[in-house]
Amino acid sequence: MSPFDLDAYLRERRALVDAALVRLLPGEDVPPPTVHRAMRYSVMAGGKRLRPILVIAGAEAVGAAPATVMPTACALELIHTYSLIHDDLPAMDDDDYRRGRLTNHKVFGDAIAILAGDALLTLAFKLVADNAALVPDARVICDVVAEIADAAGTGGMVAGQVVDIESEGKAVTPETLEYIHSHKTAALLRASLSVGVRLGGGDAAALAAISDAGQSLGVAFQIVDDILDVEGSLEALGKTAGSDARKQKATYPALHGVDASRREARRLIERAKSRLAVFGARSAPICALADFVVERKS
Amino acid sequence: MSPFDLDAYLRERRALVDAALVRLLPGEDVPPPTVHRAMRYSVMAGGKRLRPILVIAGAEAVGAAPATVMPTACALELIHTYSLIHDDLPAMDDDDYRRGRLTNHKVFGDAIAILAGDALLTLAFKLVADNAALVPDARVICDVVAEIADAAGTGGMVAGQVVDIESEGKAVTPETLEYIHSHKTAALLRASLSVGVRLGGGDAAALAAISDAGQSLGVAFQIVDDILDVEGSLEALGKTAGSDARKQKATYPALHGVDASRREARRLIERAKSRLAVFGARSAPICALADFVVERKS
Repeated sequence: MSPFDLDAYLRERRALVDAALVRLLPGEDVPPPTVHRAMRYSVMAGGKRLRPILVIAGAEAVGAAPATVMPTACALELIHTYSLIHDDLPAMDDDDYRRGRLTNHKVFGDAIAILAGDALLTLAFKLVADNAALVPDARVICDVVAEIADAAGTGGMVAGQVVDIESEGKAVTPETLEYIHSHKTAALLRASLSVGVRLGGGDAAALAAISDAGQSLGVAFQIVDDILDVEGSLEALGKTAGSDARKQKATYPALHGVDASRREARRLIERAKSRLAVFGARSAPICALADFVVERKS
Repeated sequence: MSPFDLDAYLRERRALVDAALVRLLPGEDVPPPTVHRAMRYSVMAGGKRLRPILVIAGAEAVGAAPATVMPTACALELIHTYSLIHDDLPAMDDDDYRRGRLTNHKVFGDAIAILAGDALLTLAFKLVADNAALVPDARVICDVVAEIADAAGTGGMVAGQVVDIESEGKAVTPETLEYIHSHKTAALLRASLSVGVRLGGGDAAALAAISDAGQSLGVAFQIVDDILDVEGSLEALGKTAGSDARKQKATYPALHGVDASRREARRLIERAKSRLAVFGARSAPICALADFVVERKS
């Protein structure tokens, strides 16, 4: 049992992030209203805010306050949301529900959904640039822009989505599955922690440690996501359980079984936590988040 | 008659840009190859490279060399290309040809086309961040990221595209048409010149002048584009002439007639050139480009 109160931590940080998102997104009455409504519809659909909270936890691990990284924390949530909107399109995964609500294109149509995703990705980089006002060295902001772009583009998230789509209905090797997981999900989770440490003023050793830990945590997160898709229900997930199997998506439990998958997720989380030792007591939130990632039910 | 040899200028700058694009885009053999092939397919389809050349011309107007702004110049071309790929999708304008070749989704499918567009937009911001190595003050790079994001997002290009789509088949007021033109096209053209001046070390007065000139030039460019769509041919344009009318798109000649449209474009170009006087002889390339924009046949 950890003495760290993760529930309170998540509640407080999520409230900070939600308030910042409301403030930083263009208002629904700002022209053109359609796209701004579509952007807010998906961003404010109430996710876990895992990526922004990881940015904040990364900053806190090196002693910086949440406020100093908030624009970048929100940027990571916008990038995550854009990827969900585009992934859900008929041309991609063709999903009707997300987080228990109709997907963006089901409400606003495919054209506005594509543009809302494009706009969220664009706004994300604006927010990172705006973060320059909160840190002493603007060169760090340039590094953060580059790291996020690497993690979100064809060196990360987009690459994972491409290979995921190309693997549908095919027999997938463990190596390909590892590639999909480490790019589609882990890259952005790792970057979230890493840019938090960067903006918080962490040195090269801190960046190496957080990057390793973030990679392990990210892959573990995706493995648990796969398990939940097998075991979960619509109520808990807000999306149709078993949808991966129905679409013949490559998943960790399909390849290795549920028990081995859960063991692998736990092993990765232990590895992540061992790399976090360098941050001492300040890593308590990330360690608790790591346990949460692997034990969560939705 | 201007003594400035625009043909030679465009040829030389375009060669520099094309070489840089080849170097900066991920290779077609880099995994996952599909999306990298799709990105190169559209970027290397041989456009005019107007936006990167405007970035270079902006830098030259304040005495900086093309090499110091090349990553950002390429970034503007990637953003332009991403917008074309997404605009051409069946869910948007549903175009089969662009620059005389099949559109991206006709070759690679809708899913890869969406992802290739997303990846180009993401890579664009990576290139701007990389430009930090070539300028003395990283804070300028943050300003450039913010300005490009404003011009490409719902304060600019995306806003114009949204209103354009929403106006199809409807009677459009002159004010709405002005909104579409100034956002969909002019915003990114203006930003191209402006970030060139910014990276080249221009002061506030230079930025104000170039921003005004860029806005006029950008609107004139779109008006001429509309005229060419009425008058042009598939050979010259690489796309089907009259396609705007067929889709009942709002255009300047449809609202004001071809003669008045051409007069308005010329008036805007004269206004742009008068604002460029502050740069003296160094503005010769931009002035020649402005004349070219309004006199071009494709």
